[in-house]
Amino acid sequence: MNVGILVIGDELTSGMTQDTNSSFAARELYVQWWRVSAVMTVGDDVSAIRGGLDYLLGISDALVVMGGLGPTADDITTACVAKAFGLGLYTDDTVLKQLKERFAKIHIPWTENNAKQALFPDGAVVIDNPAGTACGFFLERSGIPVTVMPGVPVEARNMLLEGVIPLFREKLGSRERVAKRAINIFRLSESKIDQELARENLNIPGVSIGFYPRFPQISVVVTSRGEDAARVEENLTRAEKKITNRLGHYIFGYDDDTMEGVVAALLTDRGLTLAVAESCTGGLIIDRLTDVPGSSLFLERGVVVYSNASKVDLLGVPASIIDKHGAVSEETAVLMAEGVRRLGGTDIGLATTGIAGPAGGTEEKPVGTVFVALSSGEGTICRRYQFRWKRRRIKEISAQIALDMLRRALTGGDILA
Amino acid sequence: MNVGILVIGDELTSGMTQDTNSSFAARELYVQWWRVSAVMTVGDDVSAIRGGLDYLLGISDALVVMGGLGPTADDITTACVAKAFGLGLYTDDTVLKQLKERFAKIHIPWTENNAKQALFPDGAVVIDNPAGTACGFFLERSGIPVTVMPGVPVEARNMLLEGVIPLFREKLGSRERVAKRAINIFRLSESKIDQELARENLNIPGVSIGFYPRFPQISVVVTSRGEDAARVEENLTRAEKKITNRLGHYIFGYDDDTMEGVVAALLTDRGLTLAVAESCTGGLIIDRLTDVPGSSLFLERGVVVYSNASKVDLLGVPASIIDKHGAVSEETAVLMAEGVRRLGGTDIGLATTGIAGPAGGTEEKPVGTVFVALSSGEGTICRRYQFRWKRRRIKEISAQIALDMLRRALTGGDILA
Repeated sequence: MNVGILVIGDELTSGMTQDTNSSFAARELYVQWWRVSAVMTVGDDVSAIRGGLDYLLGISDALVVMGGLGPTADDITTACVAKAFGLGLYTDDTVLKQLKERFAKIHIPWTENNAKQALFPDGAVVIDNPAGTACGFFLERSGIPVTVMPGVPVEARNMLLEGVIPLFREKLGSRERVAKRAINIFRLSESKIDQELARENLNIPGVSIGFYPRFPQISVVVTSRGEDAARVEENLTRAEKKITNRLGHYIFGYDDDTMEGVVAALLTDRGLTLAVAESCTGGLIIDRLTDVPGSSLFLERGVVVYSNASKVDLLGVPASIIDKHGAVSEETAVLMAEGVRRLGGTDIGLATTGIAGPAGGTEEKPVGTVFVALSSGEGTICRRYQFRWKRRRIKEISAQIALDMLRRALTGGDILA
Repeated sequence: MNVGILVIGDELTSGMTQDTNSSFAARELYVQWWRVSAVMTVGDDVSAIRGGLDYLLGISDALVVMGGLGPTADDITTACVAKAFGLGLYTDDTVLKQLKERFAKIHIPWTENNAKQALFPDGAVVIDNPAGTACGFFLERSGIPVTVMPGVPVEARNMLLEGVIPLFREKLGSRERVAKRAINIFRLSESKIDQELARENLNIPGVSIGFYPRFPQISVVVTSRGEDAARVEENLTRAEKKITNRLGHYIFGYDDDTMEGVVAALLTDRGLTLAVAESCTGGLIIDRLTDVPGSSLFLERGVVVYSNASKVDLLGVPASIIDKHGAVSEETAVLMAEGVRRLGGTDIGLATTGIAGPAGGTEEKPVGTVFVALSSGEGTICRRYQFRWKRRRIKEISAQIALDMLRRALTGGDILA
């Protein structure tokens, strides 16, 4: 089956916003063994939208349309789809009622322009949007299923997985089972992973493997397809085991696992507490850890010690050490980790100090120099890293490295690998 | 001037790689005062590429093609373009010689498939690629300039700026000028902005307005078009002034301004220092502020005080206050802001405490209850908010609210509006 994707929004054709919905959709459609005939992105413009619809209908067996379902004047997708298909518009009273209730509940005054979000082309079936106000809809055009979704990423993604793909499967009468598993890897490059996997026989019937780099990590996604559900699962498990054996400790999690989620689960399961002292990562480690529900169970405190005075005050690092070795040094990093652990009274202390740039680099310690230290009852370890990239990426890779060091320590891996 | 963009690659239509070239190109074309008619992404497939070329040629005054210029069998862009335009292929001897020299220089054995990268459609003009082996090319089709570039981001971006845009400027004769301004707004909904703007007469010749929501903020982008450059600027300024007058303090910045960047600039300009104490925002405020180069000039310290003990230790909040009013209370928030300011010895203290969920809510203080407090030489203010949304979004909106409160205080706005 060929699926066309039409993405609508001036913010995309002007380059103001990077579209990520179509790539997400393409990945999920690919997993279903469907092919994307083309992705077309057009502005909020009647003739561009109609032209795109016509072109994609001509080369596709199904159509996914995203964006332009908001309440404002430039949101014209619904009207354009209706016009392109020669349909009128109707107000869905249930949706209108839900919209008004939603506004009342969150104490936002109702304005009439919002009623637009309850308008749908005649004959269209509403697709619920539990995540927002813009419902999607489904209709058929010459036997081709067409689904229209909002452009807000979280809403579009949810609706694609919960509403659109099941609907397409139903229309197609697909018997094929698809199972997939993402294997999340950190600290191996794509070509290194490729080389390692070439040593395993992964020619398993119906199994395919794809690489999805997302800085600073890479996911290897294994997809298994076939008509026999048990066989599909069995083949997936076989491939997964081979990859797991080969890549070992470089694998930090599976599917939606995040590094911070994995670390949080390890700490919580063992009843261990953590205190974090960040300099160059500027709060990013703590921010990521506190994204995990229940992080208050293990995270006693976090400090961001940008000034030397705060390193002395909040961590007890002697000013003389900072004077002698510098704020960015192994000595300071070690004392930061030990200090935050001691003062927080926690099992573990984690610390970063470095030069995120663009200024502050020297010949001996150029921009991208980062020290990460981990202190526990077994002592303190510290490692120096040298990154290229710019400020934000240096923060991101450093935060990931620090969390990974903690993960490896907690799982008995080689911490300094 | 309408420019079509065709992006080619199976890695894109399968969702393995996120295309960022087309968004980059769209932005750069916009800067050059051209409009993107459509962006189309297709796989490495003859009929999909030909269909895309034909469609885009029909709606565009110029065409940018990216991807599929490598040496391997699936790189078929050059052949497809030649075929679509009824042209043969020729070998460019200079390019072939350069390719062989390049291989010799980096000690990679020459293989004949690489000669493919010296093939171009008859009549095409080669566009140099200083960053890689795949040269681009330019040709005209019924007076429409068509440029073809490699898909490797750094090469495509370089060639677009150095080769393609100058070439289009030379070939394309449009006198139209376009100027735009993004007006970045926080704490007004899209429909509220729409309503407010409806009260201004924004029917200015050549001026159009678009909404670009990016949670938790919205940008209103004003675009002004016309042949007279001075008039275009004048109309843009007129529209911008009307919007600025209408939305006032809800506007926190323009174009690429971020909330943290604006706050950082205000603090730096005035030589003020800041200390931040975060509970429910979990380090996100500090993370955002430290994304700004030079933030060490004003950010003395940040503390993330998840435990009650850390609120006592690091901020001097009396345990009795926490016991009596709760960690999530106005009393605690005020003492957190005052404590971090006093202990950091800074001009300003900023604090958040709340319930990000999913657990921890009570009837009196449900999930989404957040207190933000700001302490300065003029005293301490605190406000309670009630948010819906999930954990991450509660963190995001709370961090933004806190930064905005600080911005309003620094610019004499109504802080508690």
